[in-house]
Amino acid sequence: MGQPMKLYYCETLNPRKACAAARYLGVDVEFIRVDLARGEQRTPEFLALNPNGKVPVLTDGDLRLWEANAIMRFLSDRAGSDFWPEDARRFDITRWMSWDAAHFTRYGATIWFERLIKPLLGLHEDERIIEEACASLVVSCRIIDEHLAGRTWTVGSAVTAADFAIGAALPYADAMGFDFCQFRHLSRWYEALDRIDAWHDPFPLNLQRD
Amino acid sequence: MGQPMKLYYCETLNPRKACAAARYLGVDVEFIRVDLARGEQRTPEFLALNPNGKVPVLTDGDLRLWEANAIMRFLSDRAGSDFWPEDARRFDITRWMSWDAAHFTRYGATIWFERLIKPLLGLHEDERIIEEACASLVVSCRIIDEHLAGRTWTVGSAVTAADFAIGAALPYADAMGFDFCQFRHLSRWYEALDRIDAWHDPFPLNLQRD
Repeated sequence: MGQPMKLYYCETLNPRKACAAARYLGVDVEFIRVDLARGEQRTPEFLALNPNGKVPVLTDGDLRLWEANAIMRFLSDRAGSDFWPEDARRFDITRWMSWDAAHFTRYGATIWFERLIKPLLGLHEDERIIEEACASLVVSCRIIDEHLAGRTWTVGSAVTAADFAIGAALPYADAMGFDFCQFRHLSRWYEALDRIDAWHDPFPLNLQRD
Repeated sequence: MGQPMKLYYCETLNPRKACAAARYLGVDVEFIRVDLARGEQRTPEFLALNPNGKVPVLTDGDLRLWEANAIMRFLSDRAGSDFWPEDARRFDITRWMSWDAAHFTRYGATIWFERLIKPLLGLHEDERIIEEACASLVVSCRIIDEHLAGRTWTVGSAVTAADFAIGAALPYADAMGFDFCQFRHLSRWYEALDRIDAWHDPFPLNLQRD
């Protein structure tokens, strides 16, 4: 038995995908919290794991894997799961992962950063950026809402990594002031995603947090 | 023999990836130009192909596949090529595709849109957006430059779809006023990419263009 994999995370958007995937798939990982507020992502030790200075990072022996989507794929492979399908669904996985990165979570993450993170950093929200991102997010909501009409999950008949990707900003929708209830297929889909324990509670309890 | 696949494109960043991949892989596709300046991407006929109203789109029988990365993957599969590797390199493919979408080409495309497209639309460039995107792009250039030190291509020993993704904005670097010569591994890599005919000349000659 070698060392378990280590998953470096913080309670932010992209680490949620990796942490939730590890829990959902039942993969044994050691969770290591990186305190972004204290700048732990900019230490030489952490930059040796990920030169981008971002979480999540997964290590397994000599492997240093970063980007949450790549980590989800790796964990799915390790679990022998088709949570990240490699069959005929793979083109749709790439379609929706790519679309999410370029549109849906891109705009969701922009609003999340402006509304929830900037105040923590003592920075002012930029209302013009928020307004433009909200307008773009509404356009993207229409696309995924229509896609989800008559479907339970984004790709195929089971939950996949595509759902975890598209869901990344939505736990914060209320706090961000973004109401997506008007998109009823999207809302119904997100309710189902949020009933998955691993998604709803992806992060370890951190009793040492200040 | 059925109908050939149809590839809807315009001479912009993301269609370049799909058109160059089709040519590089030698896949028989019918190229169909969508005149974005005339709004052809917003016709009901086109929106039935891609509700996002964007190019590229690939059709094959009943399939309507959009997102350039998904199209590159599909074409690679059709060609029986490992241009989009499905072997042990697949985690690195996902890593770099995801990184490119979130960082490198995201910022490159932002500058491209501000500097080259907005003037065509009669809109003013936003210098603050350009300045922030340039700063972020420089950070990303350092990451990929260091990665490419001692490597010919981004993933493994052969050119892959990851190189086509990361290269997407670079044909316009001079016109955008972004000089990446200081990043010598990145420059050497891009020179090699640009020596691939399919990359350098991805689009059909359009004799009917106004």
